[in-house]
Amino acid sequence: MSLDAAVAAGLPTVKVVGTGLLGTSVGLGLASGGARVLLSDPSPTALALARDLGAGSAAAGDGADVGLVVVAAPPDVTADVVLAELAAHPAATVTDVASVKSGILAEVAARGGDLSRYVGGHPMAGRERSGPVAARGDLFIGRPWVVCAGEKADGDRVDLVRRLALALGATPVVMGAEEHDASVAVVSHVPQVAASLVAARLRTAPEGAVGLAGQGLRDVTRIASSDPLLWAQILSANAAPVLDVLTALRADLDGVIAGLASIAAEGGPGAGTPALGARAAVAKVVADGNVGRERIPGKHGGQATRYAVVTVVVPDAPGSLARLFADIGDAGVNVEELALEHAPGRAVGLVEVSVLPGVRERLEAALDAAGWKIVA
Amino acid sequence: MSLDAAVAAGLPTVKVVGTGLLGTSVGLGLASGGARVLLSDPSPTALALARDLGAGSAAAGDGADVGLVVVAAPPDVTADVVLAELAAHPAATVTDVASVKSGILAEVAARGGDLSRYVGGHPMAGRERSGPVAARGDLFIGRPWVVCAGEKADGDRVDLVRRLALALGATPVVMGAEEHDASVAVVSHVPQVAASLVAARLRTAPEGAVGLAGQGLRDVTRIASSDPLLWAQILSANAAPVLDVLTALRADLDGVIAGLASIAAEGGPGAGTPALGARAAVAKVVADGNVGRERIPGKHGGQATRYAVVTVVVPDAPGSLARLFADIGDAGVNVEELALEHAPGRAVGLVEVSVLPGVRERLEAALDAAGWKIVA
Repeated sequence: MSLDAAVAAGLPTVKVVGTGLLGTSVGLGLASGGARVLLSDPSPTALALARDLGAGSAAAGDGADVGLVVVAAPPDVTADVVLAELAAHPAATVTDVASVKSGILAEVAARGGDLSRYVGGHPMAGRERSGPVAARGDLFIGRPWVVCAGEKADGDRVDLVRRLALALGATPVVMGAEEHDASVAVVSHVPQVAASLVAARLRTAPEGAVGLAGQGLRDVTRIASSDPLLWAQILSANAAPVLDVLTALRADLDGVIAGLASIAAEGGPGAGTPALGARAAVAKVVADGNVGRERIPGKHGGQATRYAVVTVVVPDAPGSLARLFADIGDAGVNVEELALEHAPGRAVGLVEVSVLPGVRERLEAALDAAGWKIVA
Repeated sequence: MSLDAAVAAGLPTVKVVGTGLLGTSVGLGLASGGARVLLSDPSPTALALARDLGAGSAAAGDGADVGLVVVAAPPDVTADVVLAELAAHPAATVTDVASVKSGILAEVAARGGDLSRYVGGHPMAGRERSGPVAARGDLFIGRPWVVCAGEKADGDRVDLVRRLALALGATPVVMGAEEHDASVAVVSHVPQVAASLVAARLRTAPEGAVGLAGQGLRDVTRIASSDPLLWAQILSANAAPVLDVLTALRADLDGVIAGLASIAAEGGPGAGTPALGARAAVAKVVADGNVGRERIPGKHGGQATRYAVVTVVVPDAPGSLARLFADIGDAGVNVEELALEHAPGRAVGLVEVSVLPGVRERLEAALDAAGWKIVA
């Protein structure tokens, strides 16, 4: 889980085209590992900034020694830039970092680009801020970096892009462009739409309603703070796969709506005969969600693990968490997941500490002995 | 943020009817504060267990001194039990803890219950486990406890139920039954449906897709692990309000689907003329979600605060978090929110520490000086 300088130093000269957040982060990470990085950007200011930050040196001359080009241009011009770089560096491998892959591959193919040398990429990392100033050499550490090898791509060049990911501390995941686009539709794009749809309902909700918001609502809507224009671009660029998933989701939603409408028509809560089929339709979506949720990989890329959750009341003051985690450490217990929840109107927090089930009792006993209030 | 023994000791004799998770927790919390608690349950075993746990003593005799009855029966029999208790204790105030309120109030009214003495309640707390063994006297600490005063309820009795909540460390929130049911539809029931719908899409997703799951998907689907039968009951009992919100959500979803269908029909990503209206429809839902998300109250019940997030790489070993939070505490910085994210396939975690924006730089400098790797 770190930048891999040995891998970085073994890379050929890397040219980064586009010195925004992602391009500058690539340059910073590779340069810190000892790779030779050339930078290029249509904006002289952005280029100078990235260079001054230590992301590499400005590309000049014919760049005959460039072995790998990383195109980090805006999504709507990525294919153009990939084609230009394939032509400018006839021996180099060209990759990119755009978040949707099939369209770019299709356009490179349609316009005669050398598909043996183009290997698409998608580092699944980002920040809320953009631009070279927000860049960090360790932006990609521990994140998946999808490597989309087209059918005609040279194996050695696919391996080179994998090494690019490894040098930056990322986990390379090789898959086809269509599989990638279908995958991000279901694990990223549709969850974004769903979070936005739920949060949008709060827009007109009474003040008293939002005052009852709990951790569940906060979790479901956290990513609803995302940039609308960026997401319009992303969703539009992946329209067909997102459409497939949303259409299936809407069919399930229609089932829930039909079930609830049937129940509501019985005469309201507490009245009438239970519509067993309607209730079963409602339960089915929740049950299907159980099954889907179980498939999300757990820590360390392995199977999802069911952790035991110990909830501790923590005073809202500097040092409280330090004491808590010192006591947890003293108990020899490793924290698998954690979340801090705030109590409405109270100056304390509840820390939910997830641990392996086998150590739960030991942890509870140790925290109790140390004077912590355990809630659940 | 604690049980309030002074308030508990000032309560009249409390009879808890139903010694499951919620009823036993009420008894434990009140008894520990010095209140006199009588327990009742149709199951002698559950009753004996709650008594042995210290939740109170078994109700016996005519209970002439009972001043407050807390009905913690299953939702589908709550109205029956409320009516029976109103009749059995002609001077007592009767409340309940069911999660949907209008139907119970309507049934109590329709069957001639004394509406001056019935004050509905809904403590917004729960656990994954159920039954008296899972009960905790501090289950309600820091949670909202909705007090639903019908129009005919006596003011003194509404105040008594408020004091019940305060004695248990909860925050009483007085609102009407219909407002409560509409509120929980938008902040709790519809988010549950949305999380389940998104998670259900993972059920048939390829293994490679779920392997790309990131923190966004985990957050959106966390509550999708909920019990299907329990949720079928809850959603059915609140069918009309949930239906209203889901119908509005589906209209927004239809807008996104129509926009994406129009974009997909242009010939796929990278081809054709941009459909500006279609992209705007997609962006609008995300923008509406921004506005809604901003309304969720922040810590301490106040306005939502925008925190600065500092992401730190933490080795996956006991003691790491203790060291981190000790260093944060040494910097005099208070943690507002935190989340632990795991890197796929790597034995480390990323801890996202949210702090007030003004202390961000100080924290980053302090952690950097202490040798921590800061990611974002």
